[in-house]
Amino acid sequence: MEAMLQQSRAMCPFLKRTSPTALRTLSTATRPSTGGGTMSNLQVLARRCPVMNKALAVQSARMSGTKRFTSCAAGIPSIKPYKAPTGSRALHTTGGHPASVTSESYEKNEQVHRNIPRSIRSAHATDPAVRGGPRPEAPSNGHFDYNGFYNGELEKKHKDKSYRYFNNINRLAKEFPRAHTASAEERVTVWCSNDYLGMGRNTQVLESMHRTLDTYGAGAGGTRNISGHNKHAVALEDTLAKLHGKESALVFSSCFVANDATLATLGSKMPDCVILSDSLNHASMIQGIRHSGAKKMVFKHNDLQDLEAKLASLPPHVPKIIAFESVYSMCGSIAPIEKICDLADKYGAITFLDEVHAVGMYGPHGAGVAEHLDYDAYASQDTASPQSTKGTVMDRIDIITGTLGKAYGCVGGYIAGSSALVDTIRSLAPGFIFTTSLPPATMAGADTAIQYQAQQPRDRVLQQLHTRAVKSALKELDIPVIPNPSHIVPLLVGDAELAKRASDKLLEDHGIYVQAINYPTVPRGEERLRITPTPGHVKPLRDHLVQAVQAVWNDLGIKRASDWQNLGGFVGVGVEGAEEANEPIWEESQLGLAASESLEGAIARELSAEAAQKTAPQLKTGTPVGTRAHSAIGATPVGVAA
Amino acid sequence: MEAMLQQSRAMCPFLKRTSPTALRTLSTATRPSTGGGTMSNLQVLARRCPVMNKALAVQSARMSGTKRFTSCAAGIPSIKPYKAPTGSRALHTTGGHPASVTSESYEKNEQVHRNIPRSIRSAHATDPAVRGGPRPEAPSNGHFDYNGFYNGELEKKHKDKSYRYFNNINRLAKEFPRAHTASAEERVTVWCSNDYLGMGRNTQVLESMHRTLDTYGAGAGGTRNISGHNKHAVALEDTLAKLHGKESALVFSSCFVANDATLATLGSKMPDCVILSDSLNHASMIQGIRHSGAKKMVFKHNDLQDLEAKLASLPPHVPKIIAFESVYSMCGSIAPIEKICDLADKYGAITFLDEVHAVGMYGPHGAGVAEHLDYDAYASQDTASPQSTKGTVMDRIDIITGTLGKAYGCVGGYIAGSSALVDTIRSLAPGFIFTTSLPPATMAGADTAIQYQAQQPRDRVLQQLHTRAVKSALKELDIPVIPNPSHIVPLLVGDAELAKRASDKLLEDHGIYVQAINYPTVPRGEERLRITPTPGHVKPLRDHLVQAVQAVWNDLGIKRASDWQNLGGFVGVGVEGAEEANEPIWEESQLGLAASESLEGAIARELSAEAAQKTAPQLKTGTPVGTRAHSAIGATPVGVAA
Repeated sequence: MEAMLQQSRAMCPFLKRTSPTALRTLSTATRPSTGGGTMSNLQVLARRCPVMNKALAVQSARMSGTKRFTSCAAGIPSIKPYKAPTGSRALHTTGGHPASVTSESYEKNEQVHRNIPRSIRSAHATDPAVRGGPRPEAPSNGHFDYNGFYNGELEKKHKDKSYRYFNNINRLAKEFPRAHTASAEERVTVWCSNDYLGMGRNTQVLESMHRTLDTYGAGAGGTRNISGHNKHAVALEDTLAKLHGKESALVFSSCFVANDATLATLGSKMPDCVILSDSLNHASMIQGIRHSGAKKMVFKHNDLQDLEAKLASLPPHVPKIIAFESVYSMCGSIAPIEKICDLADKYGAITFLDEVHAVGMYGPHGAGVAEHLDYDAYASQDTASPQSTKGTVMDRIDIITGTLGKAYGCVGGYIAGSSALVDTIRSLAPGFIFTTSLPPATMAGADTAIQYQAQQPRDRVLQQLHTRAVKSALKELDIPVIPNPSHIVPLLVGDAELAKRASDKLLEDHGIYVQAINYPTVPRGEERLRITPTPGHVKPLRDHLVQAVQAVWNDLGIKRASDWQNLGGFVGVGVEGAEEANEPIWEESQLGLAASESLEGAIARELSAEAAQKTAPQLKTGTPVGTRAHSAIGATPVGVAA
Repeated sequence: MEAMLQQSRAMCPFLKRTSPTALRTLSTATRPSTGGGTMSNLQVLARRCPVMNKALAVQSARMSGTKRFTSCAAGIPSIKPYKAPTGSRALHTTGGHPASVTSESYEKNEQVHRNIPRSIRSAHATDPAVRGGPRPEAPSNGHFDYNGFYNGELEKKHKDKSYRYFNNINRLAKEFPRAHTASAEERVTVWCSNDYLGMGRNTQVLESMHRTLDTYGAGAGGTRNISGHNKHAVALEDTLAKLHGKESALVFSSCFVANDATLATLGSKMPDCVILSDSLNHASMIQGIRHSGAKKMVFKHNDLQDLEAKLASLPPHVPKIIAFESVYSMCGSIAPIEKICDLADKYGAITFLDEVHAVGMYGPHGAGVAEHLDYDAYASQDTASPQSTKGTVMDRIDIITGTLGKAYGCVGGYIAGSSALVDTIRSLAPGFIFTTSLPPATMAGADTAIQYQAQQPRDRVLQQLHTRAVKSALKELDIPVIPNPSHIVPLLVGDAELAKRASDKLLEDHGIYVQAINYPTVPRGEERLRITPTPGHVKPLRDHLVQAVQAVWNDLGIKRASDWQNLGGFVGVGVEGAEEANEPIWEESQLGLAASESLEGAIARELSAEAAQKTAPQLKTGTPVGTRAHSAIGATPVGVAA
């Protein structure tokens, strides 16, 4: 791929003087065309070029002959992703899901459809962007123009820069935290995965999944009610209930579904229910609240005064749900959980706490921030006396929701709470009732992951130590880390296009993958890079990240922390006292950080203890991180030992 | 378990004279108690018994000391499911998710919470059903009684017999289609799984999953936008697009989410959109339509006249979506897809076809009923000329949705359609955007399953032959099979409690698992057993099923087909001409059924061809199907050869 691009560059004066970023912009920016649709600027240019125009025609002819399926029963045909004719990188293969229909097949299509009413056919039969000739007209008969509608919606996304390009990232279990791109040979280091602890490659988890696959097969084969309920579901839900100290738990396809289904069900069934929702709540909760039809009151992020004012404004008899998160994933802030419980008690509300980014990561057993807040009580928990943890913050929360797909490395979501609550959701929520159960192997793997993390905190301690090291190193270089007490490392960029360019540059120039986070995931103007260290991000990888971020910040002239400070501060960056107000929730004593010990010393100690247990991240010394000539880490040997 | 029950029965005069079914009814039927909650009748009786009352107290004390986690990092603690004190069967372990909180721990709980406002605590801290003393009062301060609400909702489900008990069924990959129950030794034959083709235990699928697990780990580690997009997603979506002859496809956590998200997004974004929905549509579509906020018009099931009248009543310029299914899973009916396309063209609507129960099962490549309707065109498809299938029914459908969790044996769902449509949903649907991707191994397994089924139709042919054999044998015995042209074998019972008793009796007396289908999955009065044969349901298993159904119909005095006929017929049973109107959609020539060949002859031929390919169902001759003394099949040798 790389060689091809180099060759093309050598031959083509246009490619020679155009940067990869500019090429991508050209291939994605679209412009309205006479028929009402859009065409990419790159396509327009390519059709003007005598070489490319011909090449496009040849490609069209070849693609018309693509077979639907190969004839060999055993082999999976190698499916070639769409490739832009200009040699753009293999990494962005699915950007924009470009149509594979060409002008030639479009014309054939038109011939076959001659005798069928054109109203629908013409509207969706092809992608107008790749047509050379006149564009199809809007539907006749005054019918709605569906294709025009789709293209209009996509155009809006392009215009406001919220159109998303997916990066093809294949995380390698045996080289964690590295991945290959669309090319199996090209390595990048993943710095934005939510497999926070690397449990996705944990040998016990994988072993449990392999065993279950062999014995119980690939899928559950039905809904929980019809042949899809099994010992794996029973065991997993039992483990989850125990983890959170609740009577019961219920597993869903995802925590998006768990949040959506639970809030929609409670909000729609409880008479006159009001849901009080933190302003930074995740889309799944927002959707659940909207779907419930219940009255929604949004309180300012983590603002107890605003929450209390809203609670106080409601009649006592009205059912109220306070829906919030423990760790807010895009800024890393942590909710004042205990004080929210106090308000819930005072005003007769129930609490709905999303611990999606916290389970596995906080607390002596990995039960989340609510458990972490009573660290000592749970660490020394007298398992013979369950009442030893009664009245703790976690015990006071009515509904805890979590995921099996982030720190636990698998997929799926759940709720935990009282038996009556869980049974109500089990009995009423369509999103639970009418869907195929998670596969036995997935449930078994998640169960193993939870129990593994409940039994030893080393992974999350190491994750926290790496987080501290990365935050500290970046801050020293005046990189604007948004202050927060959690494991998230958000770097403020403050501009959608710039954030994307920074992400692209990290990937292309440095072999580091950090996704840009733009609207609607964060508000406009607060665009950022979101870095998530893991236990596998050992010193050479961290050093490489810090150098790369520094280089990109220089190259693109992105604002430094001091620039934000000079502007009066923004989202905590350059704000007086913000650092002090955001002391890490994992305290130094909990991390085993002695006063005299350096951070790197503690990390080395944890890593060697881990290595002794033979569960060290299996990074091979010397494996090249990137194969691109200008990859800064290309020649750097990488290993567990610093 | 069985031995324990026998022993208890020998000792206890109450157990001796009470049937398992009556015991279960007692343990599940609840009655209101003074505090406003419920208590099961069995619990009331148990507390009156001098032996059981003591045993319950001992159990309470033991359960209070349950450890949250075991100390061994490597081992998964064997989690004992809740067991009803009367020795009810292990099969129904999670029925009603009984609380593990006992009266003792409740009292301790109360002590700890003495200084905390009682308003919330008292409302959810325990399950009133297991308390001996006075029940907690409704919350003070006039706050909403959340626990009262939950119990009230559950009580409604108990009262209308729609409360669901999950059967613990562990489908064994190496003994397909058999499973073990909560006891690893106890075998039952599964006759209601949606793993229609046994792909969940297909060696190629499993091999693909094992390989992917080892290389890429357990989970995707992120959303599609943030590190969760990879070559497996690209390949799977490419395969799906090819399967349905569409430009593009998009994978979701489940087809519930796919249907919900797609309809909700289109319905809410297209101005003044109207969604025309078949009256038997699945809950996921109903939910998506409701969530869209669009105007909904329900047309009578498969009724073209009603659909046309509704379409004609709408202005031409209004966007219209006709949402329907190909195979309706609970009655097995099949939509008039081509005629619906005609109406869509005529009135400027787009078609949204749910092929969830049809993908893998119909068509020369398993693409579903839409493909099957042009069987010859697709079977002889000229892969060098894509236009050879242009204008076919499948080509005319705008949006096809399907699942990876039924005939393809894995989990997940998808949509397929034009690039512009798919890209619009990809860009706008929160249920797609904000959720963790399916694991790489799941996507790889599903991809293999689709390609396997696309390359050879033997499994679905054998499934159809078995379906014909089962339907024919049951009809000969006057069992009321609801007539339909598909692979579903629905037996009309017409009463919720009777359907559940029939299902329980099949399981307990015959080791056959067929779930009863009650309201709200089917309308009241249309309760049924739903049987789904697979390629693994060879003659001995089929014979056993038919005998068992005959016995249960006799034992419970369930109406025969002729009884329904005498009553004038109902849902097709005993209705003049219903059989003739429901000829199987898989024609005899497509099944390779020669006029002179018997059904069993054709099955034996297919099976031996399959065995020759070493992909035969791995049923071991002589393996006992049930271990229960009164299991009718206990002594019958079971093997592939009839």
